[in-house]
Amino acid sequence: MSLLPPALTNLIEELGKLPGVGPRTAERYAYNLLRSPAGNAQRLARSMSELHDKVSYCKKTFVFVPAGQEFSTLYTDPSRNKKVIAVVQEPFDVIAIERTNQFKGTYHVLGGAISPIDGIGPEQLHIQELFARITEDEVEEVILATNASVEGESTALFLQKRLSDLPTRVTRLARGLPVGVDLEYADQITLSHALEGRQTL
Amino acid sequence: MSLLPPALTNLIEELGKLPGVGPRTAERYAYNLLRSPAGNAQRLARSMSELHDKVSYCKKTFVFVPAGQEFSTLYTDPSRNKKVIAVVQEPFDVIAIERTNQFKGTYHVLGGAISPIDGIGPEQLHIQELFARITEDEVEEVILATNASVEGESTALFLQKRLSDLPTRVTRLARGLPVGVDLEYADQITLSHALEGRQTL
Repeated sequence: MSLLPPALTNLIEELGKLPGVGPRTAERYAYNLLRSPAGNAQRLARSMSELHDKVSYCKKTFVFVPAGQEFSTLYTDPSRNKKVIAVVQEPFDVIAIERTNQFKGTYHVLGGAISPIDGIGPEQLHIQELFARITEDEVEEVILATNASVEGESTALFLQKRLSDLPTRVTRLARGLPVGVDLEYADQITLSHALEGRQTL
Repeated sequence: MSLLPPALTNLIEELGKLPGVGPRTAERYAYNLLRSPAGNAQRLARSMSELHDKVSYCKKTFVFVPAGQEFSTLYTDPSRNKKVIAVVQEPFDVIAIERTNQFKGTYHVLGGAISPIDGIGPEQLHIQELFARITEDEVEEVILATNASVEGESTALFLQKRLSDLPTRVTRLARGLPVGVDLEYADQITLSHALEGRQTL
């Protein structure tokens, strides 16, 4: 005999499939929804079921676009420089860079990073499309803006090698001390990067 | 200009209403759903929208029951002793006690704990219903099984005072050292409780 109504067990099980959500957290979410007005659960359910139908990817840059829209305004906007491409892993990385208000080029979302352990090779990423764009838009600079993780770095290295045959300039985001960090507490690798990349004043 | 399709912003906002889910976690959940097959999001959405219609509370004990069922089998089961009631704060506490396989009485879920700061007084909890049951079922023992938190303890104290007028025996769960804890690392209050409640061997 199960102690919980099947509808509740069901929801807890489905919530448990979200990343980093264990059975306890799933129970907590489910109970919270149950105690909140039914409208909350309904709204969440609706936005969830609409998700796949209403969200699509830009055919050039692979950032999110509303379904039915072919290209992102981040690409079509004439004030943006199509000859500079920032290559990122995930669509949300674009938002992070946009928040700096400093970048006026375009983006290219790879859709992940090379990670043999997870079965992700270059052919699973939007790398072919990147090379097509480089030729098509006569790209002058490719900024490798992958994560500073092992996978991100290997992906950057892979792209760097492949791009070295082209006349395009290849750069990557600076490595160094993040804002607000005490030198004393900075890790070794960050500090070596900061030393290597030191700038003349 | 928003950088994300409205459907996605919407979902992130709704997910952010879950307890302990900030904007980053909500983004992560949404992106995960978007990358998984559409069926996953659909199943989660369906179980969420069914939740309020299919889950109800037992009219006696206030544990979860499938909608349409008046009383929980935890109450109606004739092998259970209706004269012993374990009083808990939340429905999931019942599951925790049931897992011990040691308790053959019935439960009473208060639906929270007294917490003036959150505007929860005794009248917001199922306390009246508890007293009705005590008379009706000629209850012999009430086990106060509220959490060992400030709110849980105040609720237990409140119930203890109110119950002292009745002939019913009132007990509470033992306080002491949890399994696997080194004496050295036990906190002061737990250790004082363990000393106070020491047992003759």
